[in-house]
Amino acid sequence: MSPIVPALAGKLDGLQSSAIRDLLTLTARADIISLAGGLPDAALMPRERIAVAAQTALGDPAVLQYTESPGLPALRAVIAERESTRIGRSVPVEEVFVTHGSQQALSLLAEVLLDPGALVIVEDPAYVGALQVFRAAGARIVAVPLDGDGLRVDVLADLLAAGERPAVVHTVSNFHNPGGVTLAPERRRRLTELAEAHGFWVIEDDPYGELWFDRPAPAPVASYSPQVIRLSSVSKTLAPTLRVGWLVAPGRVCRAVELLKQGADLCGSALTHRIAADLLADTDWLTTHIDTVRTAYGARAKSLVEAVRTTFGTRVHCTDATGGMFVWADFTDDTDTTTLLPAALEAGVAYVPGAVFAVSNAYRTSMRLCFTTSDEATLTEAITRLASISR
Amino acid sequence: MSPIVPALAGKLDGLQSSAIRDLLTLTARADIISLAGGLPDAALMPRERIAVAAQTALGDPAVLQYTESPGLPALRAVIAERESTRIGRSVPVEEVFVTHGSQQALSLLAEVLLDPGALVIVEDPAYVGALQVFRAAGARIVAVPLDGDGLRVDVLADLLAAGERPAVVHTVSNFHNPGGVTLAPERRRRLTELAEAHGFWVIEDDPYGELWFDRPAPAPVASYSPQVIRLSSVSKTLAPTLRVGWLVAPGRVCRAVELLKQGADLCGSALTHRIAADLLADTDWLTTHIDTVRTAYGARAKSLVEAVRTTFGTRVHCTDATGGMFVWADFTDDTDTTTLLPAALEAGVAYVPGAVFAVSNAYRTSMRLCFTTSDEATLTEAITRLASISR
Repeated sequence: MSPIVPALAGKLDGLQSSAIRDLLTLTARADIISLAGGLPDAALMPRERIAVAAQTALGDPAVLQYTESPGLPALRAVIAERESTRIGRSVPVEEVFVTHGSQQALSLLAEVLLDPGALVIVEDPAYVGALQVFRAAGARIVAVPLDGDGLRVDVLADLLAAGERPAVVHTVSNFHNPGGVTLAPERRRRLTELAEAHGFWVIEDDPYGELWFDRPAPAPVASYSPQVIRLSSVSKTLAPTLRVGWLVAPGRVCRAVELLKQGADLCGSALTHRIAADLLADTDWLTTHIDTVRTAYGARAKSLVEAVRTTFGTRVHCTDATGGMFVWADFTDDTDTTTLLPAALEAGVAYVPGAVFAVSNAYRTSMRLCFTTSDEATLTEAITRLASISR
Repeated sequence: MSPIVPALAGKLDGLQSSAIRDLLTLTARADIISLAGGLPDAALMPRERIAVAAQTALGDPAVLQYTESPGLPALRAVIAERESTRIGRSVPVEEVFVTHGSQQALSLLAEVLLDPGALVIVEDPAYVGALQVFRAAGARIVAVPLDGDGLRVDVLADLLAAGERPAVVHTVSNFHNPGGVTLAPERRRRLTELAEAHGFWVIEDDPYGELWFDRPAPAPVASYSPQVIRLSSVSKTLAPTLRVGWLVAPGRVCRAVELLKQGADLCGSALTHRIAADLLADTDWLTTHIDTVRTAYGARAKSLVEAVRTTFGTRVHCTDATGGMFVWADFTDDTDTTTLLPAALEAGVAYVPGAVFAVSNAYRTSMRLCFTTSDEATLTEAITRLASISR
């Protein structure tokens, strides 16, 4: 008798691999200048400082053991201190929960905050890692567009006035991925007024806030209301390999996240937590290190934006280089960026078509350009190559 | 107007913190000999070897970057090689998926294999980390008791004959947590025959298999059928801080797990993956290291079992010390171990009452004793203290 082959869960039929991750595989060819990636520059990561911290950490046998589910206490303490400064109120350690990158914070929060069918408001274009999580949680997703000042809070207000009742509004508040824009201070205030009036959570997803170029990011959305759950990470400032992200949330949210973290993976790595705590507590060194990253990314971003503007003129609208890792560019002459991509790859340049990040709007003529991993001359060359095929 | 405070998801009402984790907090007092923990001994972990591997790994900037969702390729390769030897067939790298400890393998598999309401067969007493995951997945849980030869496969066969149709059967095949027993070879064969006849998955959860004392564990359940998904980890042999577990499963299962891993936390740590790969590939060193751990645990386990038998005689039945980290002891005189615990703590000894692991049976008179973190004299003293209050 032949075996009866067992099935997989039905919900998997609806899940797809991240299109960007698949594209990254395609664009790893050495002759392609990739503006398609979303990776920070490994050459700017503090490898030697991490090696010193690893040796120090490994002097203590306790660093080999399981650690607490909410994170190594020393790491939570230094994050609480930094977030207190950032948010402008004293954040107790109990309100800091360390996760395996901020992606895990998002996925645990989706379980903690959302009943099946709950409404989640996302930005359009959206961070695809958030879309993936909210879709997997069975949420109903409605998108609110971005403009140059970030999330169109007026459109959100209209949805609320029309009777929509979100459980969560998700925003990448600073130097948006993929949109490149930052939520204006007045909109931050208005967003939290709406949250308190209508009883929804705001998830302020902020991995890029420290990577500002000319002026610091505005005060966090979380500084306006305790109904904001703040997410951040060391992946863009120190190194992704540490897998250290965190959320700052009221104690009852942290306790619920803890229950789910135990089932999800018990706890983080005491070793990488100890390394992250060491580097975050070394404030003078850290300031200098982050300055170096900001300066390098700022120079690259400005070269890229200048090349786009010089080369394409009014044919392409491009966001300003203000911080983070991405600019968002939009063909004003109806060029379809998905259709253009094979020719671009042929010419030796890759980007991510706007359609990948689209929720309600198609973003057919847009593209995300990442400036972190190429030098200024290479970025300029990439735009020259792009111009050569998009006539 | 006072703010409307947003709610948490309704399903959280049913979730509880792990009773063992909460108990661990209570038993951290220095004057208590804790047999209640479930931790490997940090003093036996290869701290210096890990420090060397960390320095080597940090010689390469790539180790700072994000890695692939299924794990660092070099780590998957060495695990595939070791699992090939263990299972007795050539395991391709595509069938190895690295997770954040084997707890994450369980939680991702629950999502991949289970539709809501699906039937999961667990062992009784059960590994509570598995119970937590299957309950969170909304599974219907039916327990099958253990005896001295592990899972009562005859009882499972009766359930199947009565029309039960499990999606998954979960078994800790070697040196059971908490039961201390090992699934007999003939039962392994019979279990997989049933899996193939009825179309269910077997999850063989095997974190302890390499920690045998007098003779190696039997051939894995996975050696009998491709419908067995094997889980293991370096947490008990190297160090939990590496957060390296894995599953070995058919390609279609691994691809589904990959989609969920991306949403859950993107990827593991290239640094800890590189360290684990280094140590696992250093086969001569590894054999000697694991021998050291096995020898130490074996001596401790035998002292503990001997102390129980000498002290309590026929009043307590205790499993043999054959491997792993736990023995399971059962009062034959109807002593209630939950009722006894406060007095035991008072006398300076802690254990986990059997009731914590109970699914269908109450295990009211049983307890789990962990022998990993105390020396022989301390373990003997613990049993003396226990005898002094359980008359």
